[in-house]
Amino acid sequence: MDRKQVAKATTKVISSYLTYQAMQSVLSELTEMNPPLALWLRGFSGQQILQDGEVYLQALLAQNQELAFRIMTVREHLVEDIMEDLPEMVLHDIKLKNSQHRKQQLERLSQLSITEPTSQIESASE
Amino acid sequence: MDRKQVAKATTKVISSYLTYQAMQSVLSELTEMNPPLALWLRGFSGQQILQDGEVYLQALLAQNQELAFRIMTVREHLVEDIMEDLPEMVLHDIKLKNSQHRKQQLERLSQLSITEPTSQIESASE
Repeated sequence: MDRKQVAKATTKVISSYLTYQAMQSVLSELTEMNPPLALWLRGFSGQQILQDGEVYLQALLAQNQELAFRIMTVREHLVEDIMEDLPEMVLHDIKLKNSQHRKQQLERLSQLSITEPTSQIESASE
Repeated sequence: MDRKQVAKATTKVISSYLTYQAMQSVLSELTEMNPPLALWLRGFSGQQILQDGEVYLQALLAQNQELAFRIMTVREHLVEDIMEDLPEMVLHDIKLKNSQHRKQQLERLSQLSITEPTSQIESASE
């Protein structure tokens, strides 16, 4: 596995996801302040595939520069705000979920071994 | 915007994406070492929606525990390997892309003002 490429691809996924979150944030502000524009942005963002944040912003820039700039500003604040804690959170999340999966699997297997006394269980001593 | 909720949602997105990358890594190892199993995993992972890494792993655990455990181990290594650099990378990526969008937009607007000083009036009268 190319560590660098995975890191780069993951960066793109996070950037796009934060662009989506920034759009949602602007949308909820607009819903209060400017409902017609909120409706327009919701329609526009529904049509556009938000898989790629940059493609989305390019399309939005051509339609409504002010909104695009606003979303760009919000995503920049967002990344400054939350990114620092994320490595710890993701590491903790994956370790926790892994151990939960392992535990559930052991429980499932021991359940099976009660009902099917001949089935083998691996690493039951964990 | 609830900063905590965004951080939590982003964590889930990253965990799921790293699960997908771990699956790809195991898949490419299997393609060399055990082509029939690689074929099976490709088929299985195509059917399963990999949007949610935990749902995917749960389904895989029920079908092939060894593969699921292997992917879980790989994603744990992966997160330890790449997460540390990601905050800096994402921050840099978003700042860079934002400034590129702003630059392109300015160029586009100045292009418009050079080439179409009268076209708006013309097209309005058409």
